[in-house]
Amino acid sequence: MEISQPEGVWAPALTAFTYRFEVDTRGTISRLHWLLQNGCNGVVVFGTTSEANSLSAVERLHFLNEAVSSGIDPGRILVGTGCCSLPDTVDLTRQAVRLGCAGVLMLPPFYYKAVTDDGLFLYFAQLIDAIADDRARIYLYHIPPISQVPFSLALIEKLIRSFPEIVVGIKDSSGDWEHTKQLIERFAGSGFRIFPGSEKYLLPAVQTGGKGCIAALANVASPVLQEVYRRRQSSKADEYQAEVDRRSAIVRKYPIIPALKSIVAEETKEPAWRNVRPPLVPLSVAQGETLIGEWREVDR
Amino acid sequence: MEISQPEGVWAPALTAFTYRFEVDTRGTISRLHWLLQNGCNGVVVFGTTSEANSLSAVERLHFLNEAVSSGIDPGRILVGTGCCSLPDTVDLTRQAVRLGCAGVLMLPPFYYKAVTDDGLFLYFAQLIDAIADDRARIYLYHIPPISQVPFSLALIEKLIRSFPEIVVGIKDSSGDWEHTKQLIERFAGSGFRIFPGSEKYLLPAVQTGGKGCIAALANVASPVLQEVYRRRQSSKADEYQAEVDRRSAIVRKYPIIPALKSIVAEETKEPAWRNVRPPLVPLSVAQGETLIGEWREVDR
Repeated sequence: MEISQPEGVWAPALTAFTYRFEVDTRGTISRLHWLLQNGCNGVVVFGTTSEANSLSAVERLHFLNEAVSSGIDPGRILVGTGCCSLPDTVDLTRQAVRLGCAGVLMLPPFYYKAVTDDGLFLYFAQLIDAIADDRARIYLYHIPPISQVPFSLALIEKLIRSFPEIVVGIKDSSGDWEHTKQLIERFAGSGFRIFPGSEKYLLPAVQTGGKGCIAALANVASPVLQEVYRRRQSSKADEYQAEVDRRSAIVRKYPIIPALKSIVAEETKEPAWRNVRPPLVPLSVAQGETLIGEWREVDR
Repeated sequence: MEISQPEGVWAPALTAFTYRFEVDTRGTISRLHWLLQNGCNGVVVFGTTSEANSLSAVERLHFLNEAVSSGIDPGRILVGTGCCSLPDTVDLTRQAVRLGCAGVLMLPPFYYKAVTDDGLFLYFAQLIDAIADDRARIYLYHIPPISQVPFSLALIEKLIRSFPEIVVGIKDSSGDWEHTKQLIERFAGSGFRIFPGSEKYLLPAVQTGGKGCIAALANVASPVLQEVYRRRQSSKADEYQAEVDRRSAIVRKYPIIPALKSIVAEETKEPAWRNVRPPLVPLSVAQGETLIGEWREVDR
């Protein structure tokens, strides 16, 4: 079987919760289908925006199985599988590979801080050895503002050199375009697939050798992002990116996850979409109303 | 049943791993027994020093059951149960309460950063509601250098006021004596049990209203720490504390977990004790030899 090679616009999909904070499997899967029919080339389940680390490993395994059973092409799913503990990471990754998913998006183990590149390399080497499946495709998840554990350029290089068929890409959520640019210049030539983690860098990324973006805004503006991706060679590409930027500026005035959920709640007329699991909190009613007002101004 | 009230010297116990990085349940439990017979009033299983976050929830449940079955008085066990996800935290806490443990040591959910006191309060409120057992005793685990998510004084106060029988203490691993002192001045009077997370502050803590310490060094120097605790009223107490400080200064020149494991490996003549799970790495052979040399100088 050919393993799909992600490109274009991927949404780190929001997770719906009931009022009792249980995962709303049906509601979440229904949104995944909507995203894939409305401008997303693919979806990431269990990203930061998905509140994945507020889910247990058992909840993640259950949800993943249900999502694939619902008829979504697993080639359009990347699965966040990086936990603090190697056994949990192995279990989740193994299941994602078994189901034929496009790959896994992998946080480094993020509890201990100031760990060494040697320790992180060993973690990935043991993981790949335990998975023992040449269909595994790992996308590194670099998000130092949250994980506080970065992938250094030296570590990325060593992982690519050691596991060239397995470690095939990265999501760069450093928020720093210079860093993404450096990754592209250094690694894209050999086929390494680089996705900025912000919608703001979609156009510069795909114009210089990146493959697309995996960006929170895709949860509520995937058609607009898709326009940038499709017309990346057009003389008007900058104008399409400006449309993205206007939307990005609005949601990023608020805590991003509750802000996106407020918009989805409004669009779907399902207020439960506003629910987030603690320690996150929803927007206040007043914040939510202001956001929706601003969003309607820009998104029409 | 009376629930035990921890005091004195508690070791956040090291976890033994095999050369294949599996939890060595027997080896770890045997060390717990040794600690309890050699100067520790109690042990914490699944602390930071235990590499708890490198263990899956399944591994933790299994180990905890085995430890209690081995005959250790559960009243002398505190259990680290704070995970990123509430369902895992609930499962582990429920089991610790069921087994009659002295309490649980609770990290805040630590993936998301810059979360609000409101979000953290809600997390604890939901946890306590889900446990629904008035035997639960929660010790907050404040360790901002690693968790990056602090417990503010306002949050601590709100938790104590809301759940006075349940939220009964704190381990302060801020590394900042002024902070520990502030906790003692503000909360010890009402019976809140405060333990500095460093052996260096054992004497000042117990002389001013703290209950003892939960400190990594207790893994290898529990009799010396116990001497400080027992003689805290003696005119020579400072000298005993100085003995602790000399040992502390040596191990803290190195990454503390592998350093402690090197000493245990040396003392037990079981070299596998040096194993740590990635992303941690053991001391180099040279580092290990220097450390052991220095340790022998001071610990005789």
